[in-house]
Amino acid sequence: MTLSGSLFMMLVSSLILAQSTSQNPETGRTDGTLFPVYDLVKELGAMREKQGAMETRLKESESQIVELKSKETTSVAFAATSGGGREGAAIGPFGTDRTLVFRRVLSNLGNGYNSETGVFTAPVAGTYYFFMSHHAGGQHIVSLTLIRNSDAIVQTYDHASTADTADNGSNAAVLQLQQGDLVYVRLDANTHVWGNDLVTTFSGFLL
Amino acid sequence: MTLSGSLFMMLVSSLILAQSTSQNPETGRTDGTLFPVYDLVKELGAMREKQGAMETRLKESESQIVELKSKETTSVAFAATSGGGREGAAIGPFGTDRTLVFRRVLSNLGNGYNSETGVFTAPVAGTYYFFMSHHAGGQHIVSLTLIRNSDAIVQTYDHASTADTADNGSNAAVLQLQQGDLVYVRLDANTHVWGNDLVTTFSGFLL
Amino acid sequence: MTLSGSLFMMLVSSLILAQSTSQNPETGRTDGTLFPVYDLVKELGAMREKQGAMETRLKESESQIVELKSKETTSVAFAATSGGGREGAAIGPFGTDRTLVFRRVLSNLGNGYNSETGVFTAPVAGTYYFFMSHHAGGQHIVSLTLIRNSDAIVQTYDHASTADTADNGSNAAVLQLQQGDLVYVRLDANTHVWGNDLVTTFSGFLL
Repeated sequence: MTLSGSLFMMLVSSLILAQSTSQNPETGRTDGTLFPVYDLVKELGAMREKQGAMETRLKESESQIVELKSKETTSVAFAATSGGGREGAAIGPFGTDRTLVFRRVLSNLGNGYNSETGVFTAPVAGTYYFFMSHHAGGQHIVSLTLIRNSDAIVQTYDHASTADTADNGSNAAVLQLQQGDLVYVRLDANTHVWGNDLVTTFSGFLL
Repeated sequence: MTLSGSLFMMLVSSLILAQSTSQNPETGRTDGTLFPVYDLVKELGAMREKQGAMETRLKESESQIVELKSKETTSVAFAATSGGGREGAAIGPFGTDRTLVFRRVLSNLGNGYNSETGVFTAPVAGTYYFFMSHHAGGQHIVSLTLIRNSDAIVQTYDHASTADTADNGSNAAVLQLQQGDLVYVRLDANTHVWGNDLVTTFSGFLL
Repeated sequence: MTLSGSLFMMLVSSLILAQSTSQNPETGRTDGTLFPVYDLVKELGAMREKQGAMETRLKESESQIVELKSKETTSVAFAATSGGGREGAAIGPFGTDRTLVFRRVLSNLGNGYNSETGVFTAPVAGTYYFFMSHHAGGQHIVSLTLIRNSDAIVQTYDHASTADTADNGSNAAVLQLQQGDLVYVRLDANTHVWGNDLVTTFSGFLL
């Protein structure tokens, strides 16, 4: 018993000494304590609590980064010209309104523009910029109207003119679109434009 | 005492055995140690230090995410037409320069554009794109000047013409603005444009 | 020995009592345990493991934030006019195609546009928007072609006209560029535009 008693003494003393020489980072005390394990448990609990709180914040940060990246990578942008070759030909006049189809695609990120129909369909909700430009001879009126769904937004217009054999016109708009909204250029009834690879164009992009 | 001595022996032995069978994740050692509590305190200190460092980094990440989101959500974009109904009427000529007021607002994110005054006031510093377009009859000169504060930036201009009864013109610019900078379209003295809902327009957005 | 035995008793009892009154956050048990240090070590190991995992996630978040910020700060945007003073003069016609140099720089973020050569060189790969606009007298044909490397993209064009003394034209395009791609406005052979500080312009920006 004396031997084991002395061994106990050594062991317990070593425990207490260990405590004495370690500094509690929270209290800063370096003196020995009678409740080293209790203190450790308290500390561990505090750290576990903070770890849980930090993990919640980290999760929140991660989900916001995902959201930011998804916005960052949502690229919607297109440009197209009527096509018609180098020289081209007049498009119209027709007796009724027609969607002007821009067949020569310069770019179409996000695949919103359909070069078969001439219609841009918003792949995502957001604020978009659209631009259209025409070149046309003077024999007929020119009237291109930018349409959102069925609403007239902006227009390029020119009178017929026997004196001036050709003219140009452009217009643009910023529109807030819902996903699926349709935007296109309408060639108004009884009007015409010149269609070749370069002059009459339609473009747009998500801001 | 023998009994309690034996009990002590059991207890302290159990402590030491516990240590012996647990592996220190840092050192990987599985051998018993005479300073288990000291090791725990050391480990706890190291973890607390790392936890503090991680919390600092997490805070920094959070504040950078807030900054990124604020940039992401700073949407400034507007478009407006002169208005004037479907048919419309000439605006001008006037004897002095006038700010051209675009009364039919197509969009106005960030509320930078004032449809009463025709003036866009930059809500935040940044790089902006502006576009303007006119349609006008040939009876008078056309001169629209895009103004930043009091500086002429770009212009659409047309001579009077008895031969050509109408014409179009557009221009655009990229400008770096300070918060509060003013941008507007000036209808220059003794010139006119056609004002209806669709043809004469002003738009802009923060890049 | 009796005294020290009692002291041991007190110490060890205090350890056990400490455990008894502290709640294990994981198991929720408040009863005394014979393996308090073992439990602590287990807990510490679990926390360390989670800390390591969280640090990995934090590092990942930090690197994604850096990436987002770098994209956020890649601003490329420019605008320039031909220059030529307030009144200006015709530019062209010349017997061969010429790059039209826009000497009055309105803005040039990212330094992509060179006002000596008239050429924009994409500083980074990406999707860009370009706009050009001309004003010109009627004595000669007008033909400005937006060129990417050597490809014709869009054009503004006008016939010569003795009746109409001046006209305007604009066009625009969205283009996906590789770093180093060249974009410029070509004044086509035997055509002219009017060059002053405000009317004939070229601008572009990275979307």
